Amino acid sequence: MHDTFLAGCRSAIGAEHVWTETADTLRFAHDFWDQYRGRAAAVLRPGSTAEVAAVLALASQHGVAIVPQAGNTGLVNGGVPDASGNQVVLSVERLDRIRAIDPAGDYLIAEAGCILDNVQAAAAGAGRLFPLAMGSSGSCRIGGNLATNAGGLNVLRYGMTRELVLGLEVVLHDGTILDLLRPIRKDNTGYDLKQLFIGSEGTLGVVTAAVLRLMAQPRERVTIWLAVETPQHAVSLFRTCRSRFGELISAFEIISSEGVEIAVNGLPGVRRPVGDPAPWHVLIEVAWTFTEGLRGQVDAMLEDILAQALCLDGTVAENEAQRANMWRLREGQSESARAFGYILRSDVAVAIADIPELLAWVEERQATLAGLGIRILPFGHIGDGNLHVNFVLPPGTDTGLHAELLQGLYDQVDRLGGSISAEHGVGRAKRDAVSQRKSAASRHLSGRIKRALDPDNLLNPGVVLAPEESVP
Amino acid sequence: MHDTFLAGCRSAIGAEHVWTETADTLRFAHDFWDQYRGRAAAVLRPGSTAEVAAVLALASQHGVAIVPQAGNTGLVNGGVPDASGNQVVLSVERLDRIRAIDPAGDYLIAEAGCILDNVQAAAAGAGRLFPLAMGSSGSCRIGGNLATNAGGLNVLRYGMTRELVLGLEVVLHDGTILDLLRPIRKDNTGYDLKQLFIGSEGTLGVVTAAVLRLMAQPRERVTIWLAVETPQHAVSLFRTCRSRFGELISAFEIISSEGVEIAVNGLPGVRRPVGDPAPWHVLIEVAWTFTEGLRGQVDAMLEDILAQALCLDGTVAENEAQRANMWRLREGQSESARAFGYILRSDVAVAIADIPELLAWVEERQATLAGLGIRILPFGHIGDGNLHVNFVLPPGTDTGLHAELLQGLYDQVDRLGGSISAEHGVGRAKRDAVSQRKSAASRHLSGRIKRALDPDNLLNPGVVLAPEESVP
Repeated sequence: MHDTFLAGCRSAIGAEHVWTETADTLRFAHDFWDQYRGRAAAVLRPGSTAEVAAVLALASQHGVAIVPQAGNTGLVNGGVPDASGNQVVLSVERLDRIRAIDPAGDYLIAEAGCILDNVQAAAAGAGRLFPLAMGSSGSCRIGGNLATNAGGLNVLRYGMTRELVLGLEVVLHDGTILDLLRPIRKDNTGYDLKQLFIGSEGTLGVVTAAVLRLMAQPRERVTIWLAVETPQHAVSLFRTCRSRFGELISAFEIISSEGVEIAVNGLPGVRRPVGDPAPWHVLIEVAWTFTEGLRGQVDAMLEDILAQALCLDGTVAENEAQRANMWRLREGQSESARAFGYILRSDVAVAIADIPELLAWVEERQATLAGLGIRILPFGHIGDGNLHVNFVLPPGTDTGLHAELLQGLYDQVDRLGGSISAEHGVGRAKRDAVSQRKSAASRHLSGRIKRALDPDNLLNPGVVLAPEESVP
Repeated sequence: MHDTFLAGCRSAIGAEHVWTETADTLRFAHDFWDQYRGRAAAVLRPGSTAEVAAVLALASQHGVAIVPQAGNTGLVNGGVPDASGNQVVLSVERLDRIRAIDPAGDYLIAEAGCILDNVQAAAAGAGRLFPLAMGSSGSCRIGGNLATNAGGLNVLRYGMTRELVLGLEVVLHDGTILDLLRPIRKDNTGYDLKQLFIGSEGTLGVVTAAVLRLMAQPRERVTIWLAVETPQHAVSLFRTCRSRFGELISAFEIISSEGVEIAVNGLPGVRRPVGDPAPWHVLIEVAWTFTEGLRGQVDAMLEDILAQALCLDGTVAENEAQRANMWRLREGQSESARAFGYILRSDVAVAIADIPELLAWVEERQATLAGLGIRILPFGHIGDGNLHVNFVLPPGTDTGLHAELLQGLYDQVDRLGGSISAEHGVGRAKRDAVSQRKSAASRHLSGRIKRALDPDNLLNPGVVLAPEESVP
């Protein structure tokens, strides 16, 4: 299939970078967690922006659907081909250079195939911080972070991926290269075109490089673990902490009792930071650029909140091992739960004040689902209103139940005016659920944008928008 | 003219809010500084989002060009009608309610006609900070801040207007209301449509309300004035300060020697904060949520930088009057210069490391222009790479010189890869200069976006994009 197209690609990027054998293409056609399996007609691995442009020009000429792929760690079926066998994967893996780093100017330029850990390391090597951080940082790549407007652990302080981008280089549907790579924070020269591509999951263009913002490296960091009675206490603590520490809070996470116990039992060497099991746990990290004094501020706060009975118990990490243990508990929530069955993930957000109501519903729901052996393990980012309410389904659970479980959760999120897709993207997995919740005005406008930028619907078709929303 | 249209408007929003007499419309047709004078066929003052929608639906039916206007403090001829007398001003002045404020959720919802000072006051009244700040805050309105993606004094810390927006309510060209008013920081449900409208100067839709982010209120603030030998010293000091204070720096401004002397001589009661005139001056503000301790950190830094001869002299504001004096010097730069003639403004940005080179050119240029009685008074935001290199032209200067002076500056900015429009917008004033510097790809894509959202080119036509870029 696509013979002329593939011949053109071989000539444009080298035959050794055009893969069509299933043995080679398989890992690009299945997602990292093996939840979604498609079939790739081919995998193309261009080595430069010009080669990406050549590939897209050919795809446009031949009417070939392109699925851009970076680290393939996505959770929403947005980066693998569909089952038709007609779609071609464009992998940006080989675009993995840090093109420039300017610590004085607070930026670096990374290509889309750079692994997030490597970008963080490059920044650290120059004495700066690139603050995007998430569990998958060892394998996810910047192109995917940009495509999904990824969130992660430090959004509260540093913002989503969108807020960390100063400039982009993008290849449009017909192979035109759009160079918006300016390392300038204030640049209001007409429409801010880069915003279109961030978070649009490869459906409007293929990002090949980005100018990313760097921050000052903190010198003192304090990590705190609190046991609390209810989610309302966690939210109240967030307000207290926010008022006292302002923008110095890097993370403010909540974890359920059962989530903590499962992680303590399932992850080697991991221990509960406070003595007794507790209904809810909060992990807080604050940091600043000074070398000392922050711990004293934390101790003063802890004294106050214990005196006010805002928490049941609390401790501060005294060394890197204790800190790593706390974070392992938080980041190992999915890993430790996998022993109990299939994890049906969610990624919802509500106003911070509505978190207790949403978690009260979760507790009720848990009671009714216990009979089916289903556990609900909610955890997430209190400071962003973003919760991952994950259902753990014992082996043999009817997969027909998935939609029903999510629907129940989404109904509550709808009632609270929240979002059913906070930081993981839409992909194909959430496309229809998201679309159903959009106003007609919003759907129509999204379709107009898609058609203006990808008139033949060849860029990641079926992702974010349904095919019928993508064509005139 | 437009009789049927105006009759429809009278019926939709009340005859008392449809103004056609020149005595009434004049202030809407001239900008605040009276630099640009147009003619308005009418001024419409709808009182609700539904009324804005009715007006735009009528304009679409009758082919009437609409110029959205908020506080009319813009500097780039983007908010007043052109000279044709055919354009109709849609003023959002009456949309001036704070619809909601949620200090716990860190947001408020303001209508587009809210004066910035009033939004700041509402936030402060709830114990929170709305950090957008600029000289015009007593008269500029949120709709204009959003339309221009306004910057101002605290961008370094809190970002441009874009970064302070969680949600928008927008009326599209045909009167469709797009409700994107969700108060959620993490919301990746498809294309982030609100980004299209921020910074597009009313050419893609009319913003009627916004969900704005609130921050923690600082409790200790330290304002520092330094005299420095060269712009390179100022940039080095910024690096030192950034490393020591990280995100706690709220402002880092530079002012020329002559700018300071003119302000000291021209503004009643204003005094030079350090004893002697100096080549350059730096104004720094740092703040945090703790009640004390920051002054000690500042004193330690001052000791170090004086020891290293990074500055010539320095002082810290010991009270609110001294702080106000420092800010008056900075914010009174244009006001005090006006005594010497016409101010030809600019608003450019370069990478922070390139600021010394740009200011070296300014000093050379000043030497050649002195014979014509022209002064150059550069000042601006070192931390954002954003300088306002303003030319003060004595009365009687040939206005034909304006373009030449700006072109000379822009040539330097181009050479450094900078931006000629950092935070004031494009309007009609900079439209062609901006367009000339855009790639064909960027121009074409902007045109496609404009036509997708405003197919008849009736929303602020001629602003940002030239008419020929706005029609198929």
